[in-house]
Amino acid sequence: MTGYTMTVTVNRPYGETVAAVRDGLAEQGFGVLTEIDVAATLKQKLDVDVAPQVILGACRPELAHRALGAVPSIATMLPCNVVVRSTGDASTVVEAIDPDAMMQLADDRALRDVAADARGRLRATLDSLEGTR
Amino acid sequence: MTGYTMTVTVNRPYGETVAAVRDGLAEQGFGVLTEIDVAATLKQKLDVDVAPQVILGACRPELAHRALGAVPSIATMLPCNVVVRSTGDASTVVEAIDPDAMMQLADDRALRDVAADARGRLRATLDSLEGTR
Repeated sequence: MTGYTMTVTVNRPYGETVAAVRDGLAEQGFGVLTEIDVAATLKQKLDVDVAPQVILGACRPELAHRALGAVPSIATMLPCNVVVRSTGDASTVVEAIDPDAMMQLADDRALRDVAADARGRLRATLDSLEGTR
Repeated sequence: MTGYTMTVTVNRPYGETVAAVRDGLAEQGFGVLTEIDVAATLKQKLDVDVAPQVILGACRPELAHRALGAVPSIATMLPCNVVVRSTGDASTVVEAIDPDAMMQLADDRALRDVAADARGRLRATLDSLEGTR
């Protein structure tokens, strides 16, 4: 865990955890707009092996619309990335960007409410995973 | 322009500029791993109209690999977003996340060189567009 992410370690295999994260995000009203299979990409481009991990770009359209209306430049920080990374056969780290930390860079009164809303929903997604440990 | 982005305004139409940005990124060794048509997404999900804009997720695999090797959590900030936004018939803003600004959140000695390299390449991409004004 770092100052700019929210993290949980789940005692479940990677694939199962990715599925649970997708479900959790959907329950919180996030669509997954982008998806990068990091391990497959680095294998293909550089022929190197890294642990299975995926970057899911989560977006709740209402929040994105409000944020972009307030500060168009915030598009450079969208969507909210949620990373799922295998750390063992039955150990998987799920790490989401912390929208509040983003506010350190893009402080704006109108954005603060949006960031707080997004943060709460990402936190709830991670908490739903902890419940399944 | 904000403290966390690098921006250029190009006196060309939107579609032409998107194509030029793609070419410029490729010349700097970036692949475009993700792509979000913001206007189309918000139209579809919320039935609202916003200016044509796209979020391109640019990744230079060598840099991503070095960054992830140093700080796995940095995956939550990848890829580097480059936003192209129409601001008029022949006026388009191109705005890239500033990797140096990201270092305010994720300061790490090993990441600094990677961020500086990525920043230089994104800057060169924007500069190549200014040349075509």
